[in-house]
Amino acid sequence: MMLSDLQIAQKAKMSHILEIAKTINLSSEDLELYGDYKAKISFDAINRYKKNPRGKIVLVTAINPTKAGEGKSTTTIGLGDSLKALGYKTMIALREPSLGPVMGMKGGAAGGGYAQVVPMEDINLHFTGDIHAIGASNNLISSVIDNHLYQGNELNINPEKVIWRRAIDMNDRSLRKIQVALSLKREVPRYDGFDITVASEVMAVLCLSKDLDDLKQRLAAMVVAYDMDDQPITVADLKIQGALVMLLKDAIKPNLVQTLEKTPALIHGGPFANIAHGANSIIATDFASRVSDYVVTEAGFGADLGMEKFMDIKMRVMDTMPSAVVIVASIRALKLHGNASDDLLDQEDVQALKDGLVNLEKHIESVKTFDRPYVVAINRFPKDTENEIQALMDWAKDNNHPISLSEVFSKGSQGGLDLAQKVVEITKDENPHENRPLYPLNMPIKNKIEIIAKKIYGADGVDYGEKALEQLQAFNHNKWNDLAICMAKTPLSLSDDPKLKGRPQNFRITVREFKPSIGAGFIVALTGQVMTMPGLPKHGAYENMDVVDEKIIGLF
Amino acid sequence: MMLSDLQIAQKAKMSHILEIAKTINLSSEDLELYGDYKAKISFDAINRYKKNPRGKIVLVTAINPTKAGEGKSTTTIGLGDSLKALGYKTMIALREPSLGPVMGMKGGAAGGGYAQVVPMEDINLHFTGDIHAIGASNNLISSVIDNHLYQGNELNINPEKVIWRRAIDMNDRSLRKIQVALSLKREVPRYDGFDITVASEVMAVLCLSKDLDDLKQRLAAMVVAYDMDDQPITVADLKIQGALVMLLKDAIKPNLVQTLEKTPALIHGGPFANIAHGANSIIATDFASRVSDYVVTEAGFGADLGMEKFMDIKMRVMDTMPSAVVIVASIRALKLHGNASDDLLDQEDVQALKDGLVNLEKHIESVKTFDRPYVVAINRFPKDTENEIQALMDWAKDNNHPISLSEVFSKGSQGGLDLAQKVVEITKDENPHENRPLYPLNMPIKNKIEIIAKKIYGADGVDYGEKALEQLQAFNHNKWNDLAICMAKTPLSLSDDPKLKGRPQNFRITVREFKPSIGAGFIVALTGQVMTMPGLPKHGAYENMDVVDEKIIGLF
Repeated sequence: MMLSDLQIAQKAKMSHILEIAKTINLSSEDLELYGDYKAKISFDAINRYKKNPRGKIVLVTAINPTKAGEGKSTTTIGLGDSLKALGYKTMIALREPSLGPVMGMKGGAAGGGYAQVVPMEDINLHFTGDIHAIGASNNLISSVIDNHLYQGNELNINPEKVIWRRAIDMNDRSLRKIQVALSLKREVPRYDGFDITVASEVMAVLCLSKDLDDLKQRLAAMVVAYDMDDQPITVADLKIQGALVMLLKDAIKPNLVQTLEKTPALIHGGPFANIAHGANSIIATDFASRVSDYVVTEAGFGADLGMEKFMDIKMRVMDTMPSAVVIVASIRALKLHGNASDDLLDQEDVQALKDGLVNLEKHIESVKTFDRPYVVAINRFPKDTENEIQALMDWAKDNNHPISLSEVFSKGSQGGLDLAQKVVEITKDENPHENRPLYPLNMPIKNKIEIIAKKIYGADGVDYGEKALEQLQAFNHNKWNDLAICMAKTPLSLSDDPKLKGRPQNFRITVREFKPSIGAGFIVALTGQVMTMPGLPKHGAYENMDVVDEKIIGLF
Repeated sequence: MMLSDLQIAQKAKMSHILEIAKTINLSSEDLELYGDYKAKISFDAINRYKKNPRGKIVLVTAINPTKAGEGKSTTTIGLGDSLKALGYKTMIALREPSLGPVMGMKGGAAGGGYAQVVPMEDINLHFTGDIHAIGASNNLISSVIDNHLYQGNELNINPEKVIWRRAIDMNDRSLRKIQVALSLKREVPRYDGFDITVASEVMAVLCLSKDLDDLKQRLAAMVVAYDMDDQPITVADLKIQGALVMLLKDAIKPNLVQTLEKTPALIHGGPFANIAHGANSIIATDFASRVSDYVVTEAGFGADLGMEKFMDIKMRVMDTMPSAVVIVASIRALKLHGNASDDLLDQEDVQALKDGLVNLEKHIESVKTFDRPYVVAINRFPKDTENEIQALMDWAKDNNHPISLSEVFSKGSQGGLDLAQKVVEITKDENPHENRPLYPLNMPIKNKIEIIAKKIYGADGVDYGEKALEQLQAFNHNKWNDLAICMAKTPLSLSDDPKLKGRPQNFRITVREFKPSIGAGFIVALTGQVMTMPGLPKHGAYENMDVVDEKIIGLF
């Protein structure tokens, strides 16, 4: 009987975080401790290593996932442990889990099985308070906007064109659309809504900032509303960028923890992968790359979304490229792409598996578009059969795709040694070089989207809704053309239709609307509905949670 | 030129918190560090000292304050430093500041001048995350309620009788009344609102809990709504008390910091002083009393509210009494009670001062009602004149009131030595004894309120609004009679009319409505309007805040 993630994590004999820090040459002065097993890294330490040559960044991405996900975080952590087991100085850089989904049923974002970061309870709950600080910052902006409207509206803000929404780190569907200011005589009620905190632009900004000054400038540039003449109103107009930086001055420091096998891991920042770019902070990834041979990191959803945005948004800011890409695929998901039914994924179906490989093949092509070496990692699930695995290995051999069966979930680093060796092999001659994005920034927004849609999704072209076209005109007027593009699309298909599995052909995608994230430095292009506030299931995970003798039970 | 509070705090040479902990016999194993200057105390340490004999608790309270407050926190901290300077083992136990008012203009709750707790920036901002954790707990309840309504409403909750409100640690007046669930087809929109987090019953519960089990039971008992038959729905009905305890398992541990003079201080919990009892946590106060000769602590607002609730709610749970009461009065406030005009308080006015002494005299009588020794502390303000001070000293001498001029704001412990000596004197024979409350619990609610109104406020009696009378019937049905009473009244007057200064005579108070706080163990009696969500001023303090070279500026 396999233990639960929580049971495995609670059995772990963790090292004091000072011991972990020593392995990357950090002393106690470089850290702010949060208990014995978590610490924030000081800017002094970050600045000290800033000029070190970079180690190799390994990006873990995936095929289009099932709704349960393919195990990217688990593979990332396991691969890090395995690289360390091979003798390489290795760090892991991951996103911080949001508390909201923890209360639902999604499972933690701290890995799983024997490939976890610990202390997992803390990491999945309040951790070091970063997300709470981001929520407070987000909501200070809302509060100041409504206060400004109430106090006479000197900036002439159009109450119907406040685009800044409130935020809460909770799955709370009834806050998606609300009406505020219903008790006040002097103020007109207006519609608003709450997003889950990790969907706040503040989170994206924090993750893309290089330092406190950069953070302040980005926060100041965030557009929160339009005035009666349709001119954008920014945080700088409200004069609160300083207060926001003050609220975020600790949150911007990366958090050091460890894996079950004591590999140092930075867990820092967790922007949504649809409305934002879906990768951990630049400060964390950059620091990790300066103090280790390998940094293993991941990006949200499949390669069509996560990897593209990793290259074109995150890597562009860092001006580098990953030395290799690991594409995680599960046999379950491949069968789904081969048209196996959702409820039969536990049954052997070699034909569906083979049929589904077209999805993986498309993502491999995308990696090649970025000219990056790759290896396919099969994240082994208990119900995978030998026949299925063999079919997959045969396909890889026939087509010269590097592939590895990853069993880090059940075996820890020992289950990922082959994958780690393959990563070492393909990165042998891959030294970090400057960013090579898919598109240049100084190109019309439509052209940039077309490049992504054609080269990465395999679409024939892009259509625009009426609202999107109107917005493009306004963006042109506001001189917002030269920003990166952040695609918001279903992760479940290469197309913008979640039902189209495998490798859809002869399709176009439709951009319905744009969302300017000027502080983050991108324009979000929304295709279809994007959920920025999840709901709870009928019986949420919260019903099983408890604390007995100071020990948490029922958390995954 | 006097330095600002922030400048004084930033100049402080703090000791490592482990050094501070040593002075109360705690070792590094007893602490969870949050950086070098903040730590949470473990339950192991708390349990180890639980059976120690108690030191003397000194309660700092005040006359009815001006809107700016009388300097209770500053006096509490200064008195603690002075007692330590006299050679006594001393601890300070204070409430945690709420972030919301920090963004407005109220000033911090970490003392002032040379009587401060540090690191003051951290204490005033996110500190150790307790208030964020309380907010998350509060809002999990709301989310689960609305999810329950959405998922079929098995408990038959009346959507119009959900009494649980959402919470946010922000001054945000436009969230006072909102409408939620406006985007959903399956759910009926309902009215709701946000309180500032410290007004949440979760905060009151955390502060009145003795340990994790007590916390769980109290959380489970909280009433959140009524069903279609008007039966109360509790957190236990929603099955989330375990999840709530999980979210609060760190927040319930007291936070250790230090004063500018390195006196150990526990800053833990901060319930509102109107809708709740307004005192720091029982766990903190109790622990402090087990490891020191003196614990100096405070309660919100004046003695009519703060002290009464301290005795009848907090001390009842702890089954003890303070060994002495310090009544803080400022000459400014006394003049206000002598009918000086609000904008002329900086001018000498001996007659107004003398006329205002009736307010102080009434509070002294109330302290005597509880049979407690007392000393009046005049918190010196720069504009106080020698004539005024002399008039006050003469009055005290003529009437045999122990009195002391406190200059801890400008001089630190040296400015409070006389006060400390007087406290030592009056507590010489005052050893801790069992609680002696104003009223027993097993008495009708109306009688309990009448006792408070007559004995503490000096009222002739109590009237009840229609709603309050209806609620009393329902409470009777629900068997909620034997709970404590938590009065919610204006702090600005002994009566329920903020305009009546001095010592009002021939008045009655009106209870408009009740709020059951079953988890906290009290019924809140609301007289007049009670503000549970403050607003921001036209130009909030946030406009001046900034971070320069990692250093905060503009925070007070």
